[in-house]
Amino acid sequence: LNYAFSGYATTIFEVMSKLAAEHKSVNLGQGFPDQEGPESMKEIASKALYEQSNQYPSLLGVPQLRQAVARHSEANQGLPCDWASETLITVGATEGIAAAFMGLVNPGDEVVVFEPMYDSYAGMAQQVGAKLVPVQLQPPNWDIPRQQLEAAFSDKTKFILVNTPHNPTGKVFTREELQFIADLCTRHNTYALADEVYEHLVFEPHQHLSLRALPGMAERTIRLGSAGKTFSFTAWKVGWMTGPAQLLAPIIKAHQFLVFTVASNLQHAVAYGLDEADWFYRGLGLELQAKRQQLQPRLEALGLSVLPAQGTYFLTADMSSMLKPGEDDVALCKRLTVEAGVTLIPLSAFYASDARPHNLVRFCFCKEDSKLDAACEKLAAYI
Amino acid sequence: LNYAFSGYATTIFEVMSKLAAEHKSVNLGQGFPDQEGPESMKEIASKALYEQSNQYPSLLGVPQLRQAVARHSEANQGLPCDWASETLITVGATEGIAAAFMGLVNPGDEVVVFEPMYDSYAGMAQQVGAKLVPVQLQPPNWDIPRQQLEAAFSDKTKFILVNTPHNPTGKVFTREELQFIADLCTRHNTYALADEVYEHLVFEPHQHLSLRALPGMAERTIRLGSAGKTFSFTAWKVGWMTGPAQLLAPIIKAHQFLVFTVASNLQHAVAYGLDEADWFYRGLGLELQAKRQQLQPRLEALGLSVLPAQGTYFLTADMSSMLKPGEDDVALCKRLTVEAGVTLIPLSAFYASDARPHNLVRFCFCKEDSKLDAACEKLAAYI
Ligand SMILES: CSCCC(=O)C(=O)O
Ligand SMILES: CSCCC(=O)C(=O)O
Repeated sequence: LNYAFSGYATTIFEVMSKLAAEHKSVNLGQGFPDQEGPESMKEIASKALYEQSNQYPSLLGVPQLRQAVARHSEANQGLPCDWASETLITVGATEGIAAAFMGLVNPGDEVVVFEPMYDSYAGMAQQVGAKLVPVQLQPPNWDIPRQQLEAAFSDKTKFILVNTPHNPTGKVFTREELQFIADLCTRHNTYALADEVYEHLVFEPHQHLSLRALPGMAERTIRLGSAGKTFSFTAWKVGWMTGPAQLLAPIIKAHQFLVFTVASNLQHAVAYGLDEADWFYRGLGLELQAKRQQLQPRLEALGLSVLPAQGTYFLTADMSSMLKPGEDDVALCKRLTVEAGVTLIPLSAFYASDARPHNLVRFCFCKEDSKLDAACEKLAAYI
Repeated sequence: LNYAFSGYATTIFEVMSKLAAEHKSVNLGQGFPDQEGPESMKEIASKALYEQSNQYPSLLGVPQLRQAVARHSEANQGLPCDWASETLITVGATEGIAAAFMGLVNPGDEVVVFEPMYDSYAGMAQQVGAKLVPVQLQPPNWDIPRQQLEAAFSDKTKFILVNTPHNPTGKVFTREELQFIADLCTRHNTYALADEVYEHLVFEPHQHLSLRALPGMAERTIRLGSAGKTFSFTAWKVGWMTGPAQLLAPIIKAHQFLVFTVASNLQHAVAYGLDEADWFYRGLGLELQAKRQQLQPRLEALGLSVLPAQGTYFLTADMSSMLKPGEDDVALCKRLTVEAGVTLIPLSAFYASDARPHNLVRFCFCKEDSKLDAACEKLAAYI
């Protein structure tokens, strides 16, 4: 049949969650929190069903949410944003990424990405005929190989995709790193797609800085945010984009044919959340930091080496001590699900290049302490 | 910049709804009902926020909804459906169409469509590099030109897209017409995409028959349904697909990277609706038929000729008597919004071919009687 997607496997997140359910394992795989977002947002989502229209909003999104997104951009990153021309509401950041690839890329264009990376990037690149140019962040600190990054840019580069805070590593790009990236974008007159869905999940004393906030970048950067990650409502599938009107324009054309628009009652709830429930996401970074600090020594006690991170709810660890001869990270994660009762995500699933590590895994730790305890105990017992 | 979508205009539905809002006109343009769906479904949507998880469901959708979709297929079309392998929940039928184009089409493949057609078909065909092969339904009865349809099939045909009941014409394809289409699919060993979102909006004595129910078609047809159209909740953006597992497989690969999944509380509500609120959509056809029967003579009294239809909430009319010399349907619809205070959709927006009618418009009549009255009065006063 030779379909465009026939070479693609089911996304690793679904595969591992399904396996976890089958084996009733402790699921530290797919990235979703145990603790849900504010009750007040559920109330607004519910009320909106009764008090607002349940018919198509504008394809751009509900004005109240677009205004809240613009205020959020200004308040958190000092990035002024004209809600009427510089915002778009999407079906989660995933749809935003898809629409950006579809709207901005012509076949043959090059897109620079950092590996490891969220798997939809490579899927969408293939779909639109983009040539992905991967640059591998270097463990253990996930440093940027600067010469390689420089060499990755060419006159065919359409945009660089920068995910900060970074899934799966937890790296928060520094101002200096972002400046290096920004300089390359300016020099090559290319655009940037800034996937900043974990913007509020940052550990002290680190701070999230938007790539769009760098000098000269506001006019060439599209920024992505997510209610799923910001408010711990991953099932709501509400995301947003901010960026210059002329860059958003072709993305909106893709969006209108991909989904047309986004569930409006949930949009109203997210608008409320951004304005009134910022206490929720402002507290989240510290909570997550505490969870990470508890988990790390327990994993180290098992003989695993935990890599440094400054944010997100993911932790990467070197599992070399647990790998059987000839076994890779994917096989290990399956074995641990079935035999130890703990589900993790193999890091190789975040790479498109053949050259990729096979000794690293990702733990998702936005889970109840009892679940993190159980995972550690099960791993210890298994070892 | 030469983006893939740079040639595309904003979809006509958004353009006309925006113009209607600006001029406070009576909006009989974009297809959404004044009367919303069952209160009981809103209750379930609301309850699910509190009683169900708000974290990612399976990318295939919530099992309860997938089971309900399978039962609905069997109950309404006698089409047995294995929920676990033959259903997919989508962000409205629009996302289903996008995912089908992305999943099934390779560049250079041909896709046969009937004109007039919903505008996302042509947008997605262009995006994936499909060659659209349009066959124009012939007014006033929107008959299939059979020789042309036969000639439209080739060994490059990947699928035919059949929308019945049909937007914008209200045509409900007969068994005999569907059999003719099915024979061509079988003879050329091609697939079919059956956009049947208006399946329940049919006037007596007509009946909707699914293309998938024709002999030999179950194994080669993907069928699309919509909670927006079936339950008058267009803002919920919940749709579904049923079809053979091996055809759904590549579509699911596209879906996982387009949106990953669909808002879960709304999925629970639609599951409830399909099982328990069928009274709603069973009554809708008759209500709409009554509205159409009221509207038609009033339009005819204005000198417009109304074309026949058997379903949907759209009515097409020949506006030749109102066109100024050199004016086309698009200009007329804009003029009527601004000057008469009534918003309609120009039919030429449903064509990709240069050869297209410029004297026809679409009235959306799923509106309160007072609004239909107001529209007729305004048109009469303007004439
Ligand atoms: C949409 S499933 C993936 C969720 C997520 O962001 C992750 O686990 O990396
Ligand atoms: C998604 S906007 C279009 C709604 C509709 O189905 C129509 O008006 O034809």
